Amino acid sequence: MKNILGREIPETIQGYGTVKPFQGAFASLGEVEKKSVKLKSTGPKEEKVLSSIQEVLEKCSLQDGMTVSFHHHLRNGDYVLNMVLDEIAKAGVRDIKVAASSIFPIHAPLVQHIQNGVVTGIYANYMSGPVAEAISRGELKNPAIMHTHGGRARAIESGDLSIDIAFIAAPTCDTYGNINGVEGKAACGTLGYAVPDAVYATKTVAITDNLVPYPACPIEITQEHIDYVVKVDSIGDPKGIVSGTTQITKDPVGLKIAKMTAKVIEVSGLLKDGFSFQTGAGGTSLAVAAYVKELMKKNNVKGSFAAGGITGYMVEMFEEGLFESLFDVQCFDLKAVESYRDNKRHQVMSASMYGNPHNKGAVVNNLDVMILGATEIDTAFNANVTTGSSGMIMGGSGGHSDTAAGSKLAIVVTQLVKGRLPIVVDRVTTVTTPGETIDVLVTERGIAVNPLRQDLIEKLKTTNLPIMTIEELKAMAEAMTGIPEKIELDDEVVAVVEYRDGTVIDVVRKIKD
Amino acid sequence: MKNILGREIPETIQGYGTVKPFQGAFASLGEVEKKSVKLKSTGPKEEKVLSSIQEVLEKCSLQDGMTVSFHHHLRNGDYVLNMVLDEIAKAGVRDIKVAASSIFPIHAPLVQHIQNGVVTGIYANYMSGPVAEAISRGELKNPAIMHTHGGRARAIESGDLSIDIAFIAAPTCDTYGNINGVEGKAACGTLGYAVPDAVYATKTVAITDNLVPYPACPIEITQEHIDYVVKVDSIGDPKGIVSGTTQITKDPVGLKIAKMTAKVIEVSGLLKDGFSFQTGAGGTSLAVAAYVKELMKKNNVKGSFAAGGITGYMVEMFEEGLFESLFDVQCFDLKAVESYRDNKRHQVMSASMYGNPHNKGAVVNNLDVMILGATEIDTAFNANVTTGSSGMIMGGSGGHSDTAAGSKLAIVVTQLVKGRLPIVVDRVTTVTTPGETIDVLVTERGIAVNPLRQDLIEKLKTTNLPIMTIEELKAMAEAMTGIPEKIELDDEVVAVVEYRDGTVIDVVRKIKD
Repeated sequence: MKNILGREIPETIQGYGTVKPFQGAFASLGEVEKKSVKLKSTGPKEEKVLSSIQEVLEKCSLQDGMTVSFHHHLRNGDYVLNMVLDEIAKAGVRDIKVAASSIFPIHAPLVQHIQNGVVTGIYANYMSGPVAEAISRGELKNPAIMHTHGGRARAIESGDLSIDIAFIAAPTCDTYGNINGVEGKAACGTLGYAVPDAVYATKTVAITDNLVPYPACPIEITQEHIDYVVKVDSIGDPKGIVSGTTQITKDPVGLKIAKMTAKVIEVSGLLKDGFSFQTGAGGTSLAVAAYVKELMKKNNVKGSFAAGGITGYMVEMFEEGLFESLFDVQCFDLKAVESYRDNKRHQVMSASMYGNPHNKGAVVNNLDVMILGATEIDTAFNANVTTGSSGMIMGGSGGHSDTAAGSKLAIVVTQLVKGRLPIVVDRVTTVTTPGETIDVLVTERGIAVNPLRQDLIEKLKTTNLPIMTIEELKAMAEAMTGIPEKIELDDEVVAVVEYRDGTVIDVVRKIKD
Repeated sequence: MKNILGREIPETIQGYGTVKPFQGAFASLGEVEKKSVKLKSTGPKEEKVLSSIQEVLEKCSLQDGMTVSFHHHLRNGDYVLNMVLDEIAKAGVRDIKVAASSIFPIHAPLVQHIQNGVVTGIYANYMSGPVAEAISRGELKNPAIMHTHGGRARAIESGDLSIDIAFIAAPTCDTYGNINGVEGKAACGTLGYAVPDAVYATKTVAITDNLVPYPACPIEITQEHIDYVVKVDSIGDPKGIVSGTTQITKDPVGLKIAKMTAKVIEVSGLLKDGFSFQTGAGGTSLAVAAYVKELMKKNNVKGSFAAGGITGYMVEMFEEGLFESLFDVQCFDLKAVESYRDNKRHQVMSASMYGNPHNKGAVVNNLDVMILGATEIDTAFNANVTTGSSGMIMGGSGGHSDTAAGSKLAIVVTQLVKGRLPIVVDRVTTVTTPGETIDVLVTERGIAVNPLRQDLIEKLKTTNLPIMTIEELKAMAEAMTGIPEKIELDDEVVAVVEYRDGTVIDVVRKIKD
């Protein structure tokens, strides 16, 4: 079977089930349903604090085949996923599905649980490091299921992803399960990705290293969703959780791309009062922000909001009055954590509020401009942020597809050639985000606009920016690198890439040894 | 049929259905389910602001027989319920069920809609004034259904009360449906009662007189739950919404009761570090708070939280450091609104978080001491706050039953005789709150402790407080007033009183002309 993007996808995938093929970015909007939630009520005399994760597993009646979930706010400093899975392994339970919003190199011990059958399924929006590599080599029994940030919230809320036990790493938690992320030694700021898990899981457990007296104000995830609380020595390594600062690139190529991107934004007509903006934490993305900041100041533009994972750089723009407010699903650095703690207009958003296509309107729907990366982009503007050119999983959508679909102007910024390989190709290794939702590709050598955006092409014609077709960009790249050899992959599907609405946009196949 | 409290209740009630009889305050705890929610997703290019309530009704496909809901944060200043029902009547729609969290004298125009068949059903946690009187006279087609505050949240979340369209009076709302209650000319503070409606209704509409640019930080009810926004001239009269100040009684009888109550609290042993407390906004209740405050200062007690509808008096205690935090489902006065706006430890709670028995633990479960009123209390400690001694509906549980069930020490404070009628009776006209959840009755003439609380009786024996049996209190009252004549009521059931778990604890019968 081929889906609407021409991707070859089996109709049924062993360990996944029947494939609903991707039908277009907005094909699934309309009548939807959020699932019912079964739970056990907590009465007046019951207590929630348990003495160990082992006791939690007993109280939650953990069984073979269950799905357990984790959030990734502690990023590469997270201790909780490994800690819980070790206890699950010790308990002799097998065939566990791990729904982690993202997986990082620190989660390497998960590979062993995969190899010995404790873990047979993985859901993630993003993964990098040893677990991603093991999955790419075909070591996981069932194909991994890769979501977008908004799509994961949708999957949880709809029941497509049914969580038996959610383990919530809690920087601060009180004895009745109220959680905040702004206090404690593992303070990470907002806990936006954990909200759907907390609300929809059958059992929800807070794991904290900062157990405080009731109530843990300011409360972010509330007691009525938490079954149990357990205290451990440490939930994470602060050095891996938040970086001290996020830095603008000093690379002249990156700066050139950023400057051109800012010009595209200016020409688009969106850079006016009420402007809204999101960008990642990478050096080039931040450089775009820096140029946008200059333009906003020059043109006296008062923006409405910046969104995303929030960096100190966006906090600075906010504090300088360039944006009225910040929407924050996760804090990328300490400055963001402090701002969120101290400023009421630095507003948390849950993963659903951020990007779920099946609620009554996500924040991404209100974005004017989104700055995106890509490891590959094809001539239909389909972007890959899931696999590297070798076919190895090394990322995933995260908010990529959500923000691309929601924003008025989604711009991919990238060097034209990386590691001697062209970034613009006929056919990306994996489609993460459909081309219909990407408006512009900016490289240091030229800018290509999606032909769907004739309005933008007309506007850009009036500038001296190097506007060309994406085919021209591809030819330019290939002239530098030669046409790369096609990589050979096994037939076996090792990961299913779900678009934000739960349809399958592509699959990842096993890399050859 | 008689339920466990011996109340005569039909097995089936016309216009209500089959009765699930009350089985005891904690009989329903255990496995429960929250309902699935059907909704229409909002895509990136859709706008939410509509031009009129009429247009809202069209877009929401309002039909005969539907249930529409309202919150009561604007109290006796609310314009929204009347405004919407007038439009519904104009649209020629009939047989509407109105689920208003509470109904006040300002909602008198609803009586006409009841009389002409536009409105045939009413759900409320509390009602006073002309609507309550019309219902008592049997004018509503179906029996009114009276919930507790937590029980209403439970009913909405479980699907027992299914809302087609929720109308949310919004003191401030942005163009995409984010709502806050702390800004705007009708600022009322927290919006805790509106949360279940917003999350579980099929359609949710924000009605605001302060439409602001996106986003309306600090956001209290978020955009992903709101379908439409409509701006009107005024949602309410600030004079009816919040009082300037709430006042401690100056009546010597009230002060005597309050002082004795504080002594009971002290003797109970609960008045120590971590103490938690809730009281109403009435003069005697506030006087109890004043005496408790003295005791806390004297004994150097640092409390954990005060909860409830929050008054300026509780804010003062909080600001003086007597409580670490406040849990606030609704702000009773301007001082509470300001405190909630400015202080992060003045924490909102939704109606479900406040008192829903069927979630993973409500705030009431953590209450040490609750001060309650009553219009009648019987010798089994069952309390009536629903009807007056004439049988006329003049209130309702509100949080009465929720806090009584959750708190460690629930104290009813009342004069022994009111309006020449004894308050302590053999049999209350209506049971609102079951006696098993009420620990103590304090009157100016004596204190009766529920025999279930032998521990407390032992402790109080060591004091010089006038401890006696409730039968002795009743005899004392009757000695003053004579034994009152039994009121005669019609057989017709005009209201069904649901306990917080949805079982029927009593019914209200039509008053005789």
